[in-house]
Amino acid sequence: MSERFVVIMAGGRGERFWPQSRARRPKHLLPIVGAQPMLTQTIARVLPLVPARNIFVVTTQTQLAAARAVCGRLPPRNLIVEPVGRDTAAAVGLAMLLVKQRNPDAAFAILPADHVIGDVPGFRRSLETAFRAAESADELVTLGIKPTEAATGFGYIERGAAWPGDPRRVRRARRFVEKPGAAKARVYLASGRFYWNAGMFVWRGPVIAAAFRAYAPRLAAGLDRLETALKRTSTKAALKRIYPSLEKISIDYAVMEKSRNVLVVPANFGWDDVGSWTAMARHHPPDSAGNILRGLSWVEDGRRNIVISEQRHLTAVLGVDNLVVVHTPDATLVCPRERAQEIKTLLRRLQADVTTQRFL
Amino acid sequence: MSERFVVIMAGGRGERFWPQSRARRPKHLLPIVGAQPMLTQTIARVLPLVPARNIFVVTTQTQLAAARAVCGRLPPRNLIVEPVGRDTAAAVGLAMLLVKQRNPDAAFAILPADHVIGDVPGFRRSLETAFRAAESADELVTLGIKPTEAATGFGYIERGAAWPGDPRRVRRARRFVEKPGAAKARVYLASGRFYWNAGMFVWRGPVIAAAFRAYAPRLAAGLDRLETALKRTSTKAALKRIYPSLEKISIDYAVMEKSRNVLVVPANFGWDDVGSWTAMARHHPPDSAGNILRGLSWVEDGRRNIVISEQRHLTAVLGVDNLVVVHTPDATLVCPRERAQEIKTLLRRLQADVTTQRFL
Repeated sequence: MSERFVVIMAGGRGERFWPQSRARRPKHLLPIVGAQPMLTQTIARVLPLVPARNIFVVTTQTQLAAARAVCGRLPPRNLIVEPVGRDTAAAVGLAMLLVKQRNPDAAFAILPADHVIGDVPGFRRSLETAFRAAESADELVTLGIKPTEAATGFGYIERGAAWPGDPRRVRRARRFVEKPGAAKARVYLASGRFYWNAGMFVWRGPVIAAAFRAYAPRLAAGLDRLETALKRTSTKAALKRIYPSLEKISIDYAVMEKSRNVLVVPANFGWDDVGSWTAMARHHPPDSAGNILRGLSWVEDGRRNIVISEQRHLTAVLGVDNLVVVHTPDATLVCPRERAQEIKTLLRRLQADVTTQRFL
Repeated sequence: MSERFVVIMAGGRGERFWPQSRARRPKHLLPIVGAQPMLTQTIARVLPLVPARNIFVVTTQTQLAAARAVCGRLPPRNLIVEPVGRDTAAAVGLAMLLVKQRNPDAAFAILPADHVIGDVPGFRRSLETAFRAAESADELVTLGIKPTEAATGFGYIERGAAWPGDPRRVRRARRFVEKPGAAKARVYLASGRFYWNAGMFVWRGPVIAAAFRAYAPRLAAGLDRLETALKRTSTKAALKRIYPSLEKISIDYAVMEKSRNVLVVPANFGWDDVGSWTAMARHHPPDSAGNILRGLSWVEDGRRNIVISEQRHLTAVLGVDNLVVVHTPDATLVCPRERAQEIKTLLRRLQADVTTQRFL
């Protein structure tokens, strides 16, 4: 079996989980679902497939200390700090160079750090399928999640014909489409031909490198400069000098929407990106009134609330429905479930005020 | 001028101000409105009229330590502990005996500890008027608050003819009526003849003693036993032995509704019993969206909320209206303004649960 690598993208801020999620302790470093931080769970999921020394975690300087604490099973030098965020294509390019230093032809998976996966053996089978496809052909392989609702928060992948290399498990990808409106999402769902784009990819270095050169030449040139710098100086110094100059663009827009050599592995392993507090309701059993209660939380005469109370603090809710109430030792949030997506707006406002910016 | 006394009733729990108000730190020991605890403000209001040694505070064992801390200007022995709550008539009877030990014929005022009074000089003038009436005649004198709305949360006092002893400032009280329904309250307000019963009374000991004997003979007999015990043993021991046996009845029901020798001093000194969190809105300026914010509180896209955040904790509210959110270091409350009266129900439920009763 060829050597394999996994690169976990752990630079997100998870702002929609404020106030539990903070700049220094974002969503993937918290046990939002399950007893372990999401990043810990992500590492544990891939360890049976890939040795610890071949797992990289790409994070930020702000999060480095907290990330180290949950990445104890990885060599410290496998934690890579992006000096600034340059969107996903640059991060994939960085991953490509890291893997290339170790094994120029190896396949590597790109995995987000903060997703929930209910069926871990199923996930491992899908990832194994994707690795085998990537190792046996010059294809960009993606995992496509079978949609369970007409979601408008994800991009979609339309499947094409069965792939001759593994016709039962792999399809050609016909096209990548961006987040649709509600009507189009319903059409996608009904067609049975569309999958959610969960940001999970597997490819060999030369294949993704060729895609960058073909469809994102500016970024490819930047990555060439970065590769040269990595040979001449430390990873940290090279990144500090070159990374901020890389083109800021998403991997979907830079490569996936344009490439013709894309495969999709249809997958159905209980995936959830847990995008906001509302998603908690899918992973924690409600009480008889539909309330999700964590910690010392109490709802009197209220329905479908999500109440989270950290430490030994009592959070009591009386006579309200459909509210999210999250208490942490230094900050508390109260908002309706249907507005949980707007926490980012709130945080922009808190950021702009000198008395509140320290709570972000 | 005759010697005067004031007895401040400071045994309430102020449950509707939970979680700021607790069994050990109830409403009158908190600065709910103003910079000082309500009890401190109550003492300060009467000190120009009555010397500190003549001011008694009746409180409970649970609150004694906290009450002592705010009653620094009074002799320690003037803090009297009710061993159990026996409603207001027993507390008035106890006050009567305490004053009698010092001066059998002196007039004394009964004042609640936890009310807001906006016009303090006006309050003092009304109290002075009441003292003079009580000292010059065998009358039970009460302060009647001119109503500003058709409130259903107070008893009312209907005025009678001008009192010849001070016809410009004092009226005979025609009758005491219990808390009315909304329709009757509107009639009372429109008539101009009714005042709110704020639980403020002034009388001489022999006059209230005669009223107890006439209209509450069982309680009067109990008070006789208590008086005998007070002569034979310590105040604490006498109270412990006799007080629990006293008839449990309100002063309004026991005496005020039945007596014919009642005067009312119509008063208009910005009185507010601050009965719940909603009342906060009358004493703190709202922001441009009608939100009342105290401490590190933030409302984004919300109106008419009351948000109180203790210490250096940030409480952020997004996209809700008319909510009360109160954060304290160990407990947080979220409820609609219109249900703030129901906090007592919530507390009964928290009391019944072993994991939450320690937060009361």
